[in-house]
Amino acid sequence: MDNFTFFAPTYFAFGMGTENETGKYVKRFGGSKVLIHYGGGSVIRSGLLDRVKQSLEKEHLTYIELGGVKPNPRSGLVYEGIELCRNEKIDFILAVGGGSTIDSAKAIAAGVPYDGDFWDYYEGKPVENALSLGTVVTISAAGSEGSPDSVITKEEGMFKRGASGEGLRPKFTIMNPALAQTLPAYQTACGITDIMAHLYERYLTNTTEVEVTDRMIEALLLTMIHEGPRAIKDPDNYDARANIMWAGMMAHNNSCGVGRTQDWTSHEIEHELSALYDCAHGAGLAVVMPAVFKYNLKHNVMRFAQAAVRVWGCQMNFENPEETALAGIEALRQFLISIGMPKNFAELGAKEEDIEKLAHTACYGNVNTGTLGGFVELTQKDVENIYHLMV
Amino acid sequence: MDNFTFFAPTYFAFGMGTENETGKYVKRFGGSKVLIHYGGGSVIRSGLLDRVKQSLEKEHLTYIELGGVKPNPRSGLVYEGIELCRNEKIDFILAVGGGSTIDSAKAIAAGVPYDGDFWDYYEGKPVENALSLGTVVTISAAGSEGSPDSVITKEEGMFKRGASGEGLRPKFTIMNPALAQTLPAYQTACGITDIMAHLYERYLTNTTEVEVTDRMIEALLLTMIHEGPRAIKDPDNYDARANIMWAGMMAHNNSCGVGRTQDWTSHEIEHELSALYDCAHGAGLAVVMPAVFKYNLKHNVMRFAQAAVRVWGCQMNFENPEETALAGIEALRQFLISIGMPKNFAELGAKEEDIEKLAHTACYGNVNTGTLGGFVELTQKDVENIYHLMV
Repeated sequence: MDNFTFFAPTYFAFGMGTENETGKYVKRFGGSKVLIHYGGGSVIRSGLLDRVKQSLEKEHLTYIELGGVKPNPRSGLVYEGIELCRNEKIDFILAVGGGSTIDSAKAIAAGVPYDGDFWDYYEGKPVENALSLGTVVTISAAGSEGSPDSVITKEEGMFKRGASGEGLRPKFTIMNPALAQTLPAYQTACGITDIMAHLYERYLTNTTEVEVTDRMIEALLLTMIHEGPRAIKDPDNYDARANIMWAGMMAHNNSCGVGRTQDWTSHEIEHELSALYDCAHGAGLAVVMPAVFKYNLKHNVMRFAQAAVRVWGCQMNFENPEETALAGIEALRQFLISIGMPKNFAELGAKEEDIEKLAHTACYGNVNTGTLGGFVELTQKDVENIYHLMV
Repeated sequence: MDNFTFFAPTYFAFGMGTENETGKYVKRFGGSKVLIHYGGGSVIRSGLLDRVKQSLEKEHLTYIELGGVKPNPRSGLVYEGIELCRNEKIDFILAVGGGSTIDSAKAIAAGVPYDGDFWDYYEGKPVENALSLGTVVTISAAGSEGSPDSVITKEEGMFKRGASGEGLRPKFTIMNPALAQTLPAYQTACGITDIMAHLYERYLTNTTEVEVTDRMIEALLLTMIHEGPRAIKDPDNYDARANIMWAGMMAHNNSCGVGRTQDWTSHEIEHELSALYDCAHGAGLAVVMPAVFKYNLKHNVMRFAQAAVRVWGCQMNFENPEETALAGIEALRQFLISIGMPKNFAELGAKEEDIEKLAHTACYGNVNTGTLGGFVELTQKDVENIYHLMV
């Protein structure tokens, strides 16, 4: 196991009705003038935004609003939010929504006290200082509610990049699983896929002797396999939503990723797809993951075999572990199809003729300089091969 | 799943050599005049105390020392520590040692700013305010390094009680698995048993639909079963120690215990044994757990069967689940014996003639008023029956 530090100081309030305590937590964590940041109409239609506002008013907090966050959130709205916060002397940002809204709020929080262009952070500068931030989560997926990360799409060139840093951890996060009950099945499935991807990205490590984090990752994957289909079949199943919601946070607060190298190949390859075609991140990952895993299989057959046996219940073929490893990847693929995820480029709306461009942007983006991947170092040619497996 | 809040803001620095950064972390978390609290000679003999002092000196921090913490730490030394801190105007307490040292340091930290008797906290008053505290952990066991809990033995009457509260969470914790390499096998095994008990106390719940925390608990138990015997067989196995150390913290920071009722019967029944006979807490738990579980088996056969199948690899007997459930408890018992733990009253140094007294103190102690247990409500008669199963 490698040396590491771990610090996850977000306060979580979990359960029915917790959104009505939002104001209390904003106050506890020092907010007085709040920007409420959200996406489209669903938080308005469901009455959630009104309940949150009432809870702020109860604590005599003032607020302004900035809606309009889109999936794969854009830099344009971030610039607008930074300007607004500066003009209105906002001291606390409250994200009400899913990962896109939270990530957009994080970008604004980082940008407000920063003299330069906020995009610097998305080119690799660590975020140490940011405005205080709280979240009310409506979708289990990104894990951004407990993580120090944010992903934004730059409109010039339509590429997606991530920022990271302790300044981006929310001070508090409100998690009411009932808020997810109105989600369409497709979005629920996208969230499940994203959570599973966060787990696989950590599972695919070159660090040996990491049984504790292996077992924790497997535990969270097993939870998704059990609860995911239940939430999709019965959207009102509160308990299934609750298990998924806690698993989604634990999958990405990094307690199961410490002390080991991580991969993030699937995310990097997917980001180019959702940036270019504006498909859902989870849907993209469903197509990307099996292709990446098959391509990287021979790098460590036993690691994939372990997942196959422990997570997917495959019988170990001791004479031919590769067969077991492949069976595990196929089980993942079939699971993702069974919850309604796309299985190839066509279903995703991606185009074969873009592959060279996609692979080039992935490998020569702002952060990468010719290769990507923490598990196997992949060149542009490798990435092209992987995209071709998805066609 | 039940509603809950979760807040675990301790900063962890994990790995080789991290104790040399102690001073840096004391400074970061606001300490300037430090009480170093420790137990016996092992931290002196190993050179650890010197390394810690040097790291404080490097940051120009001043310190005084208070050693002498005993296993099952006593109230007497706590009173002494409180007095010392007040006289010397100490603003930071640094525990260097295992759970006993950390718990004693927590009691001092709570007592210093409190006008009344610190023991009030051990009679149920929540600890909200305490002096800042950091820890350098030398033993994986108590999980106190990441928890808001502390257990102290009151010398008048020799009984053990616990305090809890957010004020007791360490600001930072240094975890170098190599520091545990000098532990005798018996103490290593006691620690493993304690960690497994923390997991079982959470596993035995009456809350349904808690798959995510069930799976996480199972993951950590599986880690102990894999790594425990390796650390005992080869005390210098750094990786086995590292996996146990992170699992021990995760087992007790409550991320795997949220949203569910918990039991704590085994701990309450054990505390009377270690208080009266001064046996090791883990050794006591090894004798207590199988007896408690057998006694409570019929309350929820399927819960014990689930542990048997998922943790102990037992085959499910679908015609007679109780047989499977019992096989799981027997597997736990055999595992604990295999790592060198005692199996009955005689090996523990406990006496059958004390049973009535033990059961009475357990059921009518300061906190309890006639019954104990979060899984099954047990009367004094039940507790006597359980103690008799251990003879």
